[in-house]
Amino acid sequence: MYDTVIKGGTVVTAAEQFAADVGIVGETIAAVGHDLRGDRVIDATGLLVLPGGVDTHCHIEQLRADGTTDEESFISASASAFAGGTTTAITFSTQFKGRAIGPSLAEYQARAARGMIDYGFHQIITDPTDAVIHEEIPALIAAGIRSLKVFLTYDPLHVDDRGFLRILAAARRHGALVTVHCENYDAIGWMTEALLAAGLTGPKYHAWSRPVAVEREATMRAIALAELVDQPIQIFHVSCSEVAEEIARAQARGLKVWAETCPQYLTLTAADMDRPGFEGAKFMCSPAPREAGAAADLWAQIRRGTIDVISSDHSGYRFDGTAGKRSAGADASFRDIPNGVPGLGARMMLLFSEGVATGRISASDFVRLTAFNPAHLFGLTRKGRISPGADADIVLWDAKAQITLTNATMQHAIDYTPYEGKIVTGLPITTLRRGIIVMHNNTITAEPGSGRFIPRAAYDLIKPTGHLANNFNPSAYA
Amino acid sequence: MYDTVIKGGTVVTAAEQFAADVGIVGETIAAVGHDLRGDRVIDATGLLVLPGGVDTHCHIEQLRADGTTDEESFISASASAFAGGTTTAITFSTQFKGRAIGPSLAEYQARAARGMIDYGFHQIITDPTDAVIHEEIPALIAAGIRSLKVFLTYDPLHVDDRGFLRILAAARRHGALVTVHCENYDAIGWMTEALLAAGLTGPKYHAWSRPVAVEREATMRAIALAELVDQPIQIFHVSCSEVAEEIARAQARGLKVWAETCPQYLTLTAADMDRPGFEGAKFMCSPAPREAGAAADLWAQIRRGTIDVISSDHSGYRFDGTAGKRSAGADASFRDIPNGVPGLGARMMLLFSEGVATGRISASDFVRLTAFNPAHLFGLTRKGRISPGADADIVLWDAKAQITLTNATMQHAIDYTPYEGKIVTGLPITTLRRGIIVMHNNTITAEPGSGRFIPRAAYDLIKPTGHLANNFNPSAYA
Amino acid sequence: MYDTVIKGGTVVTAAEQFAADVGIVGETIAAVGHDLRGDRVIDATGLLVLPGGVDTHCHIEQLRADGTTDEESFISASASAFAGGTTTAITFSTQFKGRAIGPSLAEYQARAARGMIDYGFHQIITDPTDAVIHEEIPALIAAGIRSLKVFLTYDPLHVDDRGFLRILAAARRHGALVTVHCENYDAIGWMTEALLAAGLTGPKYHAWSRPVAVEREATMRAIALAELVDQPIQIFHVSCSEVAEEIARAQARGLKVWAETCPQYLTLTAADMDRPGFEGAKFMCSPAPREAGAAADLWAQIRRGTIDVISSDHSGYRFDGTAGKRSAGADASFRDIPNGVPGLGARMMLLFSEGVATGRISASDFVRLTAFNPAHLFGLTRKGRISPGADADIVLWDAKAQITLTNATMQHAIDYTPYEGKIVTGLPITTLRRGIIVMHNNTITAEPGSGRFIPRAAYDLIKPTGHLANNFNPSAYA
Amino acid sequence: MYDTVIKGGTVVTAAEQFAADVGIVGETIAAVGHDLRGDRVIDATGLLVLPGGVDTHCHIEQLRADGTTDEESFISASASAFAGGTTTAITFSTQFKGRAIGPSLAEYQARAARGMIDYGFHQIITDPTDAVIHEEIPALIAAGIRSLKVFLTYDPLHVDDRGFLRILAAARRHGALVTVHCENYDAIGWMTEALLAAGLTGPKYHAWSRPVAVEREATMRAIALAELVDQPIQIFHVSCSEVAEEIARAQARGLKVWAETCPQYLTLTAADMDRPGFEGAKFMCSPAPREAGAAADLWAQIRRGTIDVISSDHSGYRFDGTAGKRSAGADASFRDIPNGVPGLGARMMLLFSEGVATGRISASDFVRLTAFNPAHLFGLTRKGRISPGADADIVLWDAKAQITLTNATMQHAIDYTPYEGKIVTGLPITTLRRGIIVMHNNTITAEPGSGRFIPRAAYDLIKPTGHLANNFNPSAYA
Repeated sequence: MYDTVIKGGTVVTAAEQFAADVGIVGETIAAVGHDLRGDRVIDATGLLVLPGGVDTHCHIEQLRADGTTDEESFISASASAFAGGTTTAITFSTQFKGRAIGPSLAEYQARAARGMIDYGFHQIITDPTDAVIHEEIPALIAAGIRSLKVFLTYDPLHVDDRGFLRILAAARRHGALVTVHCENYDAIGWMTEALLAAGLTGPKYHAWSRPVAVEREATMRAIALAELVDQPIQIFHVSCSEVAEEIARAQARGLKVWAETCPQYLTLTAADMDRPGFEGAKFMCSPAPREAGAAADLWAQIRRGTIDVISSDHSGYRFDGTAGKRSAGADASFRDIPNGVPGLGARMMLLFSEGVATGRISASDFVRLTAFNPAHLFGLTRKGRISPGADADIVLWDAKAQITLTNATMQHAIDYTPYEGKIVTGLPITTLRRGIIVMHNNTITAEPGSGRFIPRAAYDLIKPTGHLANNFNPSAYA
Repeated sequence: MYDTVIKGGTVVTAAEQFAADVGIVGETIAAVGHDLRGDRVIDATGLLVLPGGVDTHCHIEQLRADGTTDEESFISASASAFAGGTTTAITFSTQFKGRAIGPSLAEYQARAARGMIDYGFHQIITDPTDAVIHEEIPALIAAGIRSLKVFLTYDPLHVDDRGFLRILAAARRHGALVTVHCENYDAIGWMTEALLAAGLTGPKYHAWSRPVAVEREATMRAIALAELVDQPIQIFHVSCSEVAEEIARAQARGLKVWAETCPQYLTLTAADMDRPGFEGAKFMCSPAPREAGAAADLWAQIRRGTIDVISSDHSGYRFDGTAGKRSAGADASFRDIPNGVPGLGARMMLLFSEGVATGRISASDFVRLTAFNPAHLFGLTRKGRISPGADADIVLWDAKAQITLTNATMQHAIDYTPYEGKIVTGLPITTLRRGIIVMHNNTITAEPGSGRFIPRAAYDLIKPTGHLANNFNPSAYA
Repeated sequence: MYDTVIKGGTVVTAAEQFAADVGIVGETIAAVGHDLRGDRVIDATGLLVLPGGVDTHCHIEQLRADGTTDEESFISASASAFAGGTTTAITFSTQFKGRAIGPSLAEYQARAARGMIDYGFHQIITDPTDAVIHEEIPALIAAGIRSLKVFLTYDPLHVDDRGFLRILAAARRHGALVTVHCENYDAIGWMTEALLAAGLTGPKYHAWSRPVAVEREATMRAIALAELVDQPIQIFHVSCSEVAEEIARAQARGLKVWAETCPQYLTLTAADMDRPGFEGAKFMCSPAPREAGAAADLWAQIRRGTIDVISSDHSGYRFDGTAGKRSAGADASFRDIPNGVPGLGARMMLLFSEGVATGRISASDFVRLTAFNPAHLFGLTRKGRISPGADADIVLWDAKAQITLTNATMQHAIDYTPYEGKIVTGLPITTLRRGIIVMHNNTITAEPGSGRFIPRAAYDLIKPTGHLANNFNPSAYA
Repeated sequence: MYDTVIKGGTVVTAAEQFAADVGIVGETIAAVGHDLRGDRVIDATGLLVLPGGVDTHCHIEQLRADGTTDEESFISASASAFAGGTTTAITFSTQFKGRAIGPSLAEYQARAARGMIDYGFHQIITDPTDAVIHEEIPALIAAGIRSLKVFLTYDPLHVDDRGFLRILAAARRHGALVTVHCENYDAIGWMTEALLAAGLTGPKYHAWSRPVAVEREATMRAIALAELVDQPIQIFHVSCSEVAEEIARAQARGLKVWAETCPQYLTLTAADMDRPGFEGAKFMCSPAPREAGAAADLWAQIRRGTIDVISSDHSGYRFDGTAGKRSAGADASFRDIPNGVPGLGARMMLLFSEGVATGRISASDFVRLTAFNPAHLFGLTRKGRISPGADADIVLWDAKAQITLTNATMQHAIDYTPYEGKIVTGLPITTLRRGIIVMHNNTITAEPGSGRFIPRAAYDLIKPTGHLANNFNPSAYA
């Protein structure tokens, strides 16, 4: 007799799909089997029973350099995630130059604790001082923040190659995965100046300022530097097949290079940034959405196995408001428009609709890309799977239902969605987080503060490969 | 309360690994969960709980052209399989030119029914006459023989390109997977004559008669012809990275081309065929084992995902005896020595030891390569997995135990193993087939005749991709 | 004091371009220099001074299996060649099954001797019997026929892989280059039957019957078999970038694989075969012209250096007449329409116009592709260059003039040109063959019978690379 | 009647080889032909007649940051070049930060004018200020300095990506080729610190501080940034096949990326830097010589056409002396040892011996790699060829003679050669520079001050390809 039994559905795991009930004891999945009995029964007849989505790339209630904070709070973000079938998020803690990481991280922890979603952090390193490298990073990792984030572009976040090497080496020594935003800082800055000098300032020129070559270059560089140190990395938000191809080459050589893409690169195009008025600003993100046709090639890379993870890169910029897209005015140049798009709520529906409903991928592929792999690659051992011992994070999914995406159903604090009006096939009916129903029919039922920090322990997957030039390990000395 | 519960082990699936009990009702897995109770309990403490191995490439009790039959019977083969952790085999039914397939297949069915292992057949097509193409193949497929086998080399088995195209088209029309032995018939024949003319006759020249270029060519050709028809194929026994690379290129282009390799290509080398006396004959198989160093590159292709399946290509030739390796005399030229090596019993131990114990692959990779994928790709929907609704084919595996492989423990009817004396890490302790213990500590406890034919229904995975030149589907007309 | 001096032009060689006079003594270029004086002076002011074109792939006055002969005689072909700036042709001698090669070749020699163009032969081998391999091929090669041609498709010409290997080995032993028509015989036959069964019979379905995959496959196979023997080959009439890419891969691995393409693949498309009425038949050749866009990719392969030679693959079929395109009726199915297009006269103008005038290649590239490389690769040591000791085969070329191609100016015996009405930039004003003006302003001034057979001696370029699997040379024994 | 006739030799051009005399009038080749007569006759019977070598990468009498100057003067360098068959050098003018280029270049011009060799300059840009970009670079280019050099590593020379982009854009605007030293500055610095921290200080660790990944990364980056601007570049001193492979990929995509390698990468290995005592320092250069076996792969890239130029990267550091290899003491760490090897005199002999004498390349390939291409790619229109109108820079070369290389015969001001004791086949007997014999049998007969600056005009080869993302040309604005 289980506390709760989800009955009559079709369980989908990262590899399989079968009819079974799911038995839950407390917060944990205790059994997957036929004819399970429970104190409480949730009827899943006709529905898919999926592991709750794991979104390993979302910006929530993040501090900005000017002391203000994202308007997307952990509470609104949790609602949006649950409404979209996601139950775990890895979000970001930002290092500010000249400030210690510890207290700042404590603030992040405090903010996140007010939400409902389970969470972890990637620690963004912007200033790899000796103290950061030798004291703060080891401490972070020991505290379960087992992934670091590096920006190769963006002011004031980006690090140079030496800083990146120092961070890679620290990650190798202490056992963390390094994630990378790959675009070339100097090239973007220089292209931007050229465009502005040419009087090309509208949102669409955002894409012109950072063409494929800029992302491809930084990706190749990140791979090369990681190879030098023999440190596993994950390339964030791969926007197109040309970039994925470089990653595929590295993977073929046996390097531990994993890749993420996001729904925006599968559904939006550069043309969206050219919509009339200032509407284009709603679709600006980095890397930029690519030309029509690019998505088909990126799907081929997903099917081929180059891409491991599909996250949202959810960004907390509103269209209106003091820090929003329009904050520098409706005729602001693209340089002055914040970039990033919201997607935490829409991610799984977009991918299911474009991927599974069209036959491009299987339901198990969907689970692998949206839940299992993100959890697996980042060491979230109790997430992303439906099997005994896992957290009872479960989504009941109607594979046939159609819905029109609107901002209201997104439930986030952002005042728009780039997917407004898009019709999708497949949607979450009920979301459980650790055994509790937290969403049903777009109604959120979780208590603020019920989300939990998930510390991550050391794990085998991200161990170095052991291949070093001349068998010399610079990380031991640098 | 289950009929049987396997308690205290670590369940390994194609994607995950977790502590759980397995509850069995009748022949079927009913639940995977914590604290399951059963009428009978099997203690798996300290052991891995794996799906029974699925070996989709083994020659058993096969009729030869001269009317004799393999000395490896379904009974001895079943014993060997169980001893090695394998519970399902897909074996071969051979078409003989000028004879109808139906009655011959009935004989195979009869022979197989005497064994203990669950089984299916690949139907070898050697003579694609109109009757075969339009009557026998559809009938076979309807009867659950949902895979065809084509030899591009070997007398009298090989088909020419036109015959191959006809078979591919028939498979496409009726929904079967086509498997291919890829070596160039003419090139091998011509090389063989040159070698014999040069007086180079010993076993080691077997490898010289069919170098990598010969396998690579036929692989590229098989892919090209399958692409023309848009028919999924599986390339059997890929021997080296050069061949795998061509397959990887096809996969990257989105073709449904899957690949199998075998333990002999990961553990034996061309040098083994040069052992003193006539010993080399024991290591002759086709394609031939490659040079030292080739295995490392092939492992890289396995890790990269190019290779989907690892089977044994178990062959029933003894060393001694009337049809054995030595049947044409101990100074027979390589052309007259039967080729093929036994491996049904050793397959999983070899792969676990070389793969998992060395850290090259994970236990889940092992399950995927030896059980899940073979079942999945060939439509064996109840095999290769540990989840509710699957057949209770389960192996309890000691991951740490070491054993020396000897022919006696192989339990087959062959009088040698090419792996004699090899020390391996990891071995099956107990094997269950459909809920019954059929092997424990190398003792077989299954009843002859208890094996069952597993018909295979149509399945999505092998549907055509839909990409045809000029959008013209020749299979509709040819 | 030279017999003739070409004065005031710009000499273009395979590498360079410079202002210089050319001094001729007898039939030979004696000097290239400033201020040369001659008994006769030809003014080349404002013109390019190019080596006479060398077309190493043209079918002229070829015997057909039915005993009839191409209507394009050596006299008309010579006129067309001279009008187009070509002074040397390698044409074909066909082996007929069951007949000795020697007498047939003697007939070809007699026919060719009636023309005005200098010539050599590729010997087509269709039936590699022992006598052919061991007696006739060595004799041919000794007589200066230092290239063999193999068809992998076409009835009754094609050879199987074993026959191809035997020919490759004979070429290796005696020092000849092997040229190959690469398309898969079985695949084309099977596709053709499917198309006819589907009622798809018009000229455009010729292309459907032999899609890219068919050419690509045979190209990969030809390369693989040549690699097995370590024999240099030239792939004839590469139609598209996909095929060239396979050749580029082989070249990167160090194989001696050279490639030819033809103007039809740079200027015609599959759509031409779909012109109204029976017009499409005029554009049928094999391989078939590809889709729009393919030419741009093929140009990229030319620029990259994958393609070495651009010949015409001139074919002698008229549109009307007893053996012409329309000979099986104006509603004949594509299978019954002779294929091949005339191009001897148009080749250089098409390439200059599409290549040099557009800036895709330099004038030296043009010389290399149309004259120097064809001569160099086939051992025509005195052809294809403007330097002392070379035959005084020279074309004065107006790089700026524009002309509309019409059949009349082609001067061939064919009753159409596929390039009718095409405007080209650049044309030959004057052609010299061995020091004599043979064409001026489209008027032919050469005497029938003045053409000369150019025997070719052994040459280094086509020596084997020395790389053989296991260091075993099968050609020594087979 | 010519002033001088070189009689009876075999002329080798970039494409051909033929018996001919060469007639010289004044400083210029006036004719190549048979039976030329001259006032003076130089007998070349039995010798090859080659264009004088063009070495487009050599450091001569270069100013160092501390105000001292290379001990290799233009006079000694000229002697070494002539002794080795080289008649033209492109050397370097260095920009010093904070100083104007003009006066510094004037000093270089003055120094160079004291030598005997014809010369040009690559202008090294280390500080791309507005004045440099908008005033000095245009002025330089207008003055015939039509190539810029960028270091991506080395203190204080290296530029960052933005600086590199500015330089690329300036080159595009004004028509210059950009050459690049590709190694990653940060990575080398960081690796060096790690090695020193590990106590690994000897010369051999120079190679460890800059493994292949470091060169490969910077090469990919240089290509990417050049692609962004659509500016042709030449990658200097490619050390190995892995790096060449990236260049080949760029070339296949149609980018104008040319590649140079140097004899040291074909003849030396990392093991040379591990010779006993401090001897290893003699072999230190950047990039570092690679592992044994790398040269064979690099030869394959040369044969394949990836590599266009083979220069010396001649460096003026002595072993002894105030600024020499040993200047920081015989136990200096690799970081403090000047790196670079002399090779101006040995270049052509090494390449002929390793390339032509072994059969790896033809004599025409040799001419193309050592003379024609360097001249052609850098716009030296009168150099690198034997044809009318070219400067009469000619080397008479004995292809069969063997010689042992020693430092004495190098004739340079450096006190060692890394090739001491190496036996080579093929050597220059007589060198002419603009019609004058400047070397015969290792005796120099040129007058100091007879060398001439060769200004270079705009040339087509280095025009942009026209492919720009979004058709936007940033160079027009930045």
